[in-house]
Amino acid sequence: MNTPSSLYQYAVAGVQQLVPYVPGKPIEELQRELGLERVVKLASNENPLGPSKKALAAMQKAMAELALYPDGSGFNLKKALAKKFLVDPAQITLGNGSNEILELVARAFLAPGLNAVFSQHAFAVYPIVTQAAGAASIVAPAVHYSHDLQAIRERVNAQTRVVFIANPNNPTGTLLSQPHLEDFVKSLPPSCVCVLDEAYYEFVHSKGEQDAVEWLGQCPNLVVMRTFSKAYGLAGLRVGYCFSSPEMADILNRVRQPFNNNSMALAAAEAALDDVEHLQHTVKNNTLGMKQLVEGFKNLGLGWITSAGNFVSVDLSEPAYPVYEALLRKGVIVRPVANYEMPNHLRISIGTPEENNLFLQALTECLNDV
Amino acid sequence: MNTPSSLYQYAVAGVQQLVPYVPGKPIEELQRELGLERVVKLASNENPLGPSKKALAAMQKAMAELALYPDGSGFNLKKALAKKFLVDPAQITLGNGSNEILELVARAFLAPGLNAVFSQHAFAVYPIVTQAAGAASIVAPAVHYSHDLQAIRERVNAQTRVVFIANPNNPTGTLLSQPHLEDFVKSLPPSCVCVLDEAYYEFVHSKGEQDAVEWLGQCPNLVVMRTFSKAYGLAGLRVGYCFSSPEMADILNRVRQPFNNNSMALAAAEAALDDVEHLQHTVKNNTLGMKQLVEGFKNLGLGWITSAGNFVSVDLSEPAYPVYEALLRKGVIVRPVANYEMPNHLRISIGTPEENNLFLQALTECLNDV
Repeated sequence: MNTPSSLYQYAVAGVQQLVPYVPGKPIEELQRELGLERVVKLASNENPLGPSKKALAAMQKAMAELALYPDGSGFNLKKALAKKFLVDPAQITLGNGSNEILELVARAFLAPGLNAVFSQHAFAVYPIVTQAAGAASIVAPAVHYSHDLQAIRERVNAQTRVVFIANPNNPTGTLLSQPHLEDFVKSLPPSCVCVLDEAYYEFVHSKGEQDAVEWLGQCPNLVVMRTFSKAYGLAGLRVGYCFSSPEMADILNRVRQPFNNNSMALAAAEAALDDVEHLQHTVKNNTLGMKQLVEGFKNLGLGWITSAGNFVSVDLSEPAYPVYEALLRKGVIVRPVANYEMPNHLRISIGTPEENNLFLQALTECLNDV
Repeated sequence: MNTPSSLYQYAVAGVQQLVPYVPGKPIEELQRELGLERVVKLASNENPLGPSKKALAAMQKAMAELALYPDGSGFNLKKALAKKFLVDPAQITLGNGSNEILELVARAFLAPGLNAVFSQHAFAVYPIVTQAAGAASIVAPAVHYSHDLQAIRERVNAQTRVVFIANPNNPTGTLLSQPHLEDFVKSLPPSCVCVLDEAYYEFVHSKGEQDAVEWLGQCPNLVVMRTFSKAYGLAGLRVGYCFSSPEMADILNRVRQPFNNNSMALAAAEAALDDVEHLQHTVKNNTLGMKQLVEGFKNLGLGWITSAGNFVSVDLSEPAYPVYEALLRKGVIVRPVANYEMPNHLRISIGTPEENNLFLQALTECLNDV
């Protein structure tokens, strides 16, 4: 009998219990729900300055060829990345967002009976891709919201195939020191892939410190992951990438779909990489906006977690969800992070000076009302 | 010791043996290799008329929002599909190309110890997604290059979780009768998901016959899969979709990445769906082009497999690979299909009248030369 209820029992074990990632509330959805005209969205760590004009121009050009399949090898984008970061194209894997890179690693190395280790308060997608592969998640406690590398290392066992390290971490914004990180990465057994998630890499000012890419020669099990969704302002296009040993890239590319990045995404990312000026504006806007928000929190007597990213988590010292909802009613979308064991925090993405100001005004009103 | 060679042994079993899909040769690659100016590509069943102008206009509009994440729910595209095909949005799953839908099904239902059944000469991605999930492939012999539904049904056992049926099939173009297909689908046990791959649906003229979508109410295990990459001319954007029971869609959406379709893809697909005129031109061009090619094959004394798709496989009665290579040197890319156990065939996508003509001329010259 083909009864509807029978279907779930035939899904693989990991999928039966899977709860998908909940994205930030889209602007259009809030507009539909509340009939609002102006909505400020500071919920998904997007670039408030928008994408590079060079990226848009490249897309215009690529439109003529839309009926053709994308270049499945990502030849031109890989060439540009290789040139900029001094690696070989054979060390690069492209993902449909860095989210997909996380998935490729999980599918290549995780299975029932194996596990992945990551920190408390770490990015919500790590446990999701782990469970989808049927593997177990081992969570190491954080210290002051930051990854505790020693606690993570201690939890790596013979069945551990992946360690996820977010640096800076989302949603806390905490940054690890490069020397400690290097020791940690090099201490891992060869059976354990280390995914270093550097989605916010471009916002980090760590002059004179080693780039993790420099460790790749000694670490065939290291994956250094970055994205065009944050500083490059191309979240709508979904382009992530990672650097690794050629062996690792070969494995990840076996699992990758042949055309995972579409033609618009490939063209825009390649052009965006070339727009150094736009990146500089973006980082400057972020530095100023971070100061503006932190100043605002101080004035409101609120605590926050010092962040190296393009977002900051503010501590309301009370359950944050009602304030999140009150902000929504005023047309401001931020991110509740109770699912990160941070029920009193809200994560705010840095916006333009005007957006930051509208948020701070709305927050002040909400805190007075509550 | 972190030696490079040690990495492969830690990949999951299915991935260790995985050989990725080989796409059609990109135009740019052939131009690079041979220094050719004009290249005719009839290798990937793309739409020679290009995408709908409505789709391009919708993309222009969507560009303003590129720094924002795509709508992870695909709200507007699902609404448009639901309206056109008389289903509920909860019955729809969107994929990054229908390739990803195949992958989602495999990841949700296949695992080591389980199997998938499909036909000889069927689409090359079926065994790839099956193996990536660690499951076994069972291949049923074809009859005159067409799926033999009885042979497929006989191979479904207690460990079978997926049957893949391509209708029309790629690369043969063979079409099954809807009543036979309906009997087959309804005969499957509830433990076996039936993926009906209708990537070439829009090219099939089967007036008065039931649409497979009408069987969904009785078949919670049925997945009817279609794409914007073929008739809609949006291969460069990667948008596939499937209709199913809401239960099936719920399972597939758990495995799906939150932002698998990017903003350009969602906007273009929604607009393309509305451009009935462009679709009609496309189908008409295909009908005429098919006649033109078949006429050319007759003149050359060659056989072919009658095709319901936007491509046709021609029988050279000799190993086809040298002819494929000779055509490349003349700037014409077609598809060798030896990997489909069809070493004497070449698959030709229907082009514009001019492209078809250039191909037929080149083929004539090559056959005379060889």
